[in-house]
Amino acid sequence: MAKNKTAITPTRAENYAEWYQQVVKNSDLAENSPVRGCMVIKPWGFGIWENIKDALDRRFKETGHENAYFPLLVPVSFLEREAEHVDGFAKECAVVTHHRLEKTDSNELRPSGLLEEPFVIRPTSETIIGETYSKWVNSYRDLPILINQWANVMRWEMRTRLFLRTSEFLWQEGHTVHASAEEAREETLMILDIYAEIARNWLAMPVIKGEKTPEERFPGAVETYTIEAMMQDGKALQAGTSHFLGQNFARAFDIKYLSKEGSEEYGWTTSWGASTRMIGGLIMTHSDDDGLVLPPAIAPKQVTIIPVGREDEQASARLEYCERLKKQLAEKTGNGYRIESFIDNRDVGGGVKFWESIKKGYPLRIEIGNKELEASTVSINRRCDDRREKSVVGVDEFVSRSESMLADIQDTLYERARKYQEDKTVSVGSLDEFVDYFKKNQDFVECFASCDPDDVDAREAATKPLQVTSRCAPLETFAEEGTCIFTGKKGKKVIFAKAY
Amino acid sequence: MAKNKTAITPTRAENYAEWYQQVVKNSDLAENSPVRGCMVIKPWGFGIWENIKDALDRRFKETGHENAYFPLLVPVSFLEREAEHVDGFAKECAVVTHHRLEKTDSNELRPSGLLEEPFVIRPTSETIIGETYSKWVNSYRDLPILINQWANVMRWEMRTRLFLRTSEFLWQEGHTVHASAEEAREETLMILDIYAEIARNWLAMPVIKGEKTPEERFPGAVETYTIEAMMQDGKALQAGTSHFLGQNFARAFDIKYLSKEGSEEYGWTTSWGASTRMIGGLIMTHSDDDGLVLPPAIAPKQVTIIPVGREDEQASARLEYCERLKKQLAEKTGNGYRIESFIDNRDVGGGVKFWESIKKGYPLRIEIGNKELEASTVSINRRCDDRREKSVVGVDEFVSRSESMLADIQDTLYERARKYQEDKTVSVGSLDEFVDYFKKNQDFVECFASCDPDDVDAREAATKPLQVTSRCAPLETFAEEGTCIFTGKKGKKVIFAKAY
Repeated sequence: MAKNKTAITPTRAENYAEWYQQVVKNSDLAENSPVRGCMVIKPWGFGIWENIKDALDRRFKETGHENAYFPLLVPVSFLEREAEHVDGFAKECAVVTHHRLEKTDSNELRPSGLLEEPFVIRPTSETIIGETYSKWVNSYRDLPILINQWANVMRWEMRTRLFLRTSEFLWQEGHTVHASAEEAREETLMILDIYAEIARNWLAMPVIKGEKTPEERFPGAVETYTIEAMMQDGKALQAGTSHFLGQNFARAFDIKYLSKEGSEEYGWTTSWGASTRMIGGLIMTHSDDDGLVLPPAIAPKQVTIIPVGREDEQASARLEYCERLKKQLAEKTGNGYRIESFIDNRDVGGGVKFWESIKKGYPLRIEIGNKELEASTVSINRRCDDRREKSVVGVDEFVSRSESMLADIQDTLYERARKYQEDKTVSVGSLDEFVDYFKKNQDFVECFASCDPDDVDAREAATKPLQVTSRCAPLETFAEEGTCIFTGKKGKKVIFAKAY
Repeated sequence: MAKNKTAITPTRAENYAEWYQQVVKNSDLAENSPVRGCMVIKPWGFGIWENIKDALDRRFKETGHENAYFPLLVPVSFLEREAEHVDGFAKECAVVTHHRLEKTDSNELRPSGLLEEPFVIRPTSETIIGETYSKWVNSYRDLPILINQWANVMRWEMRTRLFLRTSEFLWQEGHTVHASAEEAREETLMILDIYAEIARNWLAMPVIKGEKTPEERFPGAVETYTIEAMMQDGKALQAGTSHFLGQNFARAFDIKYLSKEGSEEYGWTTSWGASTRMIGGLIMTHSDDDGLVLPPAIAPKQVTIIPVGREDEQASARLEYCERLKKQLAEKTGNGYRIESFIDNRDVGGGVKFWESIKKGYPLRIEIGNKELEASTVSINRRCDDRREKSVVGVDEFVSRSESMLADIQDTLYERARKYQEDKTVSVGSLDEFVDYFKKNQDFVECFASCDPDDVDAREAATKPLQVTSRCAPLETFAEEGTCIFTGKKGKKVIFAKAY
């Protein structure tokens, strides 16, 4: 491959959507499966998910939550109990109607054993968990209930894209019950902070914390909070949501408790989720025309070490040198993660190794040839720099500086993405400006907008033709008030964008 | 409750099956859900599963395996490709036939959007993974493939029991491909060793490693290896299986590779799984008439600390004392796990706390009253001893001895279970003895039996009326030969028992 060619075809500028698919494919993260809309998450992709999972799980546990597990199947009658909820999910449910397969006369398998009541594969678990909590909650002493579950869910999607929109995906869903609205809202916001913190510190992904406007709320929620990230095409990606459900589900599922004062009260519930979709956001935040770029904190492995050179008498000495280095790096844990290395000693050409390490997004690429071996040095390239840039340092110095070097890469990626988002966020003061801007650009647009449910139609009359949606009212500017560009009423600052 | 009464009613001797259900219920491990056959795993039960998972996952990774994720749904046509496999699973599959719900005129939800081809919820994933591997494997350079997945699976069971037999359960399933039969068989046996090691060192559960006789093999396997544990009613529980699949699935799914020599060859595959069933085995290995007994290595928390006494002026000093202790214990990690404590400062009576800590199986119960506070001591009870037995030691001494104390409990439980299994395993030399013994007892019976597929019928003619099955031919005595008590031919030593 010529040096000025990119490893990924097409480039972002040529065809962003196809570039995304090619990055996923070339980095070996995931692939489409024989089951329409469902993906196979390959080891490199699953390793990222394991790191996201560990980081979130640790924070959930530190804040008093425990994990549990609830059934995959939800009786159809449960879905019906919360009116908005069923409207939100009924159209995209995988339905289980039979409990065995039987051979026909022509020796084909067909469904048999019709179920009395069909089940859906959970699209989310508010209903089945609500029903369970109604038995667990009796007294104020049983509250709060702070439970999370790691699970697969299914929403039958017609147009799917790996990680971003798949029929089956992996996620966590937290479900809590509290004795007061205030406490439930505090929980909702605390979880939002955790999501933003993991996005920031682990995925190096800048996000905007905010509240959804009414039309973008979770079906059945009173308030939905979100973290929104900007992709490199200027579109928004919702990377995690936290819902204050009020007493809607408590009423639908009869979650009642006897208060300290002896009165019977409905509980206040929350739910919150983050999914494998985060990986889609991670990819589109950092990757470039050479493929995946991974922040070190979330990479399954941070370093690829490539022994370079022919099968000469130095080959085994080079390999030992690599193994010693790998071991020394693994002992460094100051960054909050172990530095994992892959020694690429495979029986394939050096060019293949070089390009694979780039396309898979290893934060650091180390090359060890006879020159490095003899001089006790390492040749280093940072994935976030140009791929031709190299520095040569003594191996001991590299080991002792490895943690700060990785932390610096992490900061560089975050800062680059933050700057990008800042540069591509504009404020507009009128509807004309709003329409004009979106006709020419695909960025984040901030303006004042009324968040009243009655004003949704007025707003959507302007935004729908532009294929733009309200992303959130940022918490940072939540107290500011101004004139809504759609209605002339009072409004809050709201971000609008095209969205994944 | 009187001191001579048991916390669980009925006792094991009175009604073993009901005792089991009551132990699960009283220890808050799990409960039946509104979905027939599916359970809710509650936090205390899920905490055990997380520890089993971590222990297994660590060993899988240390032995070169990576995690990945494959679709939940399997096209029915995939199941059909391996003849024995489909026969083994078709009768107990949840079948997805539709992809949405629609409201009828009477406003009821009914399945809509009929799928062209129905799917089953995976009962196991050999087929969907086999299909995927056929694309991944091309050259000898792609081998071995060493992948594991943590997942939920579903087998529609008619009679279910929490953890032991549920329609949905959680498990790991490993699926590997190798270039030679020898290497695949080595993998199969290495995994069996890992299962036995986790059972031994984490669950304190003695198991017999062995090979299944032909009728007990996994549908589609050439050889199935198992770890079998003895429950306190003398029945066997299969706690993990590892299958050498030969080239059966490679042929069914066309997993072929080009060898170093340039010839096209079928791969050799293995699969292996352990599930939440292990928790059922754990319960029935150690628990007693007062409830759950947990080995410290697998307990979600090892210690319950109960502040004892009225709301006097010492109350906050007692609580601080408890918190200091909890913190000091958490710093001890020499046993390979963190010592987690629960300070039971709930607003409920002391008796409730006392009995709950027993029924939930905390390995150590610490009581802190004013006496302990003033003397800087702790009052200790080990769950594996009589509940009235107490020792009082200085708090510093307790902290410094805590790890060896927990290790000692772990050993005590293992040794007790090992002795029990040894005492309840008998050898018989003739069919008459065999029949006689099982008419009166429910233990492990060892005898010589032919493992030839042609002799299955002869053997089952004797064992079926007794409701006994062959559990395995133990690897320890695999080389010994003797006269089969069923056929008079040559045979290996085989264990027979009633089984869960």
